[in-house]
Amino acid sequence: MKRVSLLGSTGSVGTQTLDVISRYPDRFQVEALTAGQNWELLIEQANRFRPKQVSVASKELADKIKVHLPSGTVVLHGEQGLIETAANNDADIVVTAIVGSQGLKPTLAAIEAGKHIGLANKETLVSGGHLVSAAAKRNNVKLLPVDSEHSAIFQCLNGESLSSLRKIVLTASGGSFRDRTREELKDVTVKEALAHPNWSMGAKITIDSATMVNKGLEVIEAHWLFELPYDRIDVVIHPESIIHSFVEFDDRSMIAQMGLPDMRVPIQYALTYPERLVSPVHSLDLTELGKLHFRKMDFDRFPCLRMAFDCGKVGGTMTAVFNAANEVAVSRFVAGDIGFLDIEDVIESAIGRHEAAAVPTLEQIEEADGWARRVAAQYGK
Amino acid sequence: MKRVSLLGSTGSVGTQTLDVISRYPDRFQVEALTAGQNWELLIEQANRFRPKQVSVASKELADKIKVHLPSGTVVLHGEQGLIETAANNDADIVVTAIVGSQGLKPTLAAIEAGKHIGLANKETLVSGGHLVSAAAKRNNVKLLPVDSEHSAIFQCLNGESLSSLRKIVLTASGGSFRDRTREELKDVTVKEALAHPNWSMGAKITIDSATMVNKGLEVIEAHWLFELPYDRIDVVIHPESIIHSFVEFDDRSMIAQMGLPDMRVPIQYALTYPERLVSPVHSLDLTELGKLHFRKMDFDRFPCLRMAFDCGKVGGTMTAVFNAANEVAVSRFVAGDIGFLDIEDVIESAIGRHEAAAVPTLEQIEEADGWARRVAAQYGK
Repeated sequence: MKRVSLLGSTGSVGTQTLDVISRYPDRFQVEALTAGQNWELLIEQANRFRPKQVSVASKELADKIKVHLPSGTVVLHGEQGLIETAANNDADIVVTAIVGSQGLKPTLAAIEAGKHIGLANKETLVSGGHLVSAAAKRNNVKLLPVDSEHSAIFQCLNGESLSSLRKIVLTASGGSFRDRTREELKDVTVKEALAHPNWSMGAKITIDSATMVNKGLEVIEAHWLFELPYDRIDVVIHPESIIHSFVEFDDRSMIAQMGLPDMRVPIQYALTYPERLVSPVHSLDLTELGKLHFRKMDFDRFPCLRMAFDCGKVGGTMTAVFNAANEVAVSRFVAGDIGFLDIEDVIESAIGRHEAAAVPTLEQIEEADGWARRVAAQYGK
Repeated sequence: MKRVSLLGSTGSVGTQTLDVISRYPDRFQVEALTAGQNWELLIEQANRFRPKQVSVASKELADKIKVHLPSGTVVLHGEQGLIETAANNDADIVVTAIVGSQGLKPTLAAIEAGKHIGLANKETLVSGGHLVSAAAKRNNVKLLPVDSEHSAIFQCLNGESLSSLRKIVLTASGGSFRDRTREELKDVTVKEALAHPNWSMGAKITIDSATMVNKGLEVIEAHWLFELPYDRIDVVIHPESIIHSFVEFDDRSMIAQMGLPDMRVPIQYALTYPERLVSPVHSLDLTELGKLHFRKMDFDRFPCLRMAFDCGKVGGTMTAVFNAANEVAVSRFVAGDIGFLDIEDVIESAIGRHEAAAVPTLEQIEEADGWARRVAAQYGK
């Protein structure tokens, strides 16, 4: 029986994780669940899966839900609640399905407690990649990627030696606006940005797909997960999202992972690794699709991706600043406060003014993150 | 230092194997070389690679080349010569790059002598799959596939458990005539049949690609190599030959192996497994290709593939008969004796009249093989 703590259980990856878990009740037990604001769904989940702990964003919410929970379920809240549910229980694996750089501290705590990580929060590695990698090695903890691209790479590397890995190639659908020119992007609405052609995902990541910030975060995540320099990480546009990513070895043999786009495959693989169990997903039939398309990434069309590579190469606190500025910019875009193309300007203004610390402590990362959020909030005001 | 015996060194796979070997003189040493008729090239190769043994088709050829070989190189000939070069030397691995069912006996001898097999002779498994598999297990010998499709599957299964393998899918370029109707096939010439769109290969295999017999042999080979029933082996048409084959696991995750079509990649992988070394092959850039195409296999258009599946399911001596009848039919087509579409009729007439023995001995296989050759030689006379 594998005990799972699920941070961010009411979001897109969270609910799909519970779907996977519910199909194998003899294999998985839910140890803890956490949510931000969606307390109603959390109550439902808690009554179904009967975790030992739940955590919500605030004390008020915690008090509000308490009476609706199964007896024996402890209610926690805030940052401390996230850390407790990540580290202070009997979980074997912690699935970090929360959004944003708030994932860093609980993930580090879980690793220090010796728990394997189902890594769905890419901002963790973007903000504190060197800390997380070092902690995982020190504690002999596996970082099992949940992102479809990183799960793909991880699967492609099964049984292979990293020393003969030549490069990895992340595929990018191109997001909601892949066929629009930059001119046509000026006046796009939030609603348009939220309509992703292939994947059903949360709001933040869907906007990030449209700006290609998401792919930038994935590049940085891949750098840490697979210990590769940035010049050996490529991105190609593949509109169908069928090949989820691929690798090339020294002998020029390439291994790709494919399938219909359904997050339950990489989620389940992270939970069952190294085993593979039957999943509810349909088989891919390439002959029904008929064609797969690939085109070069256009860094002028998607400057956020260029910035992500640049920030990654600078390293230190620069990637945390890139991410924090983007988080604020996306919030402001969704709130109708700035336009779509302003997102990249917000990021650019923050990274342009930041002096990166080379090998930052957690405190320095938090400081840089906070500074970037203030700069991004002030942009244009 | 890995010592290599190369059966069929003057053919397409043979010369490419020596190309791979020549790039790593500190890793490989040639122990033995064999050729059929191409004695001039064999002399050249022997003087360059200085093997301990060479073997040719006949006593006459052996006598003829003797004076041109390095001192210390023993000259053998005929079936016995093949068996000696396969089994009676210090080779660590025997690459079976000879064509046809003549590969079976030397391969079995090599396995019994404890040598790993770089399996490029697919007729070995088609004729005597159960004998070869059992011998390999008994002697703890690895069957390392050299065919691009089987090497692809083999690579896709690295680090994976066969118990969660759901199916394998072999890709087929469709061969020289993939865009012709059956009506248009009636009067095709040998020259047209020898022009393969993607791969540079020997004559026999190029004709076999055009009839799809080659894919049929590969299906039977895959059945034995990966221990899968025939209903879990699929074939799809993929004209570009970029995805060399792929697998699907229980979780509906698929792993594919890709690259530019160049036999030196699977040859080298068989020689260096489990290591991967730099190869002289160019990197595949999917964005330069732009598109990959896939279409359903049409068993009415390619009845030889249907027959291969049927013979595989019957098993026993039936697959040896399928193969032997085809070998004769291809010879007769190349000699101008029968038409292109007659090849399938020759095969059909042989398998239609054969009563298969279920778990045949080597003698029964040879008997069935000989019988099928006589039937095929008599067809239409």
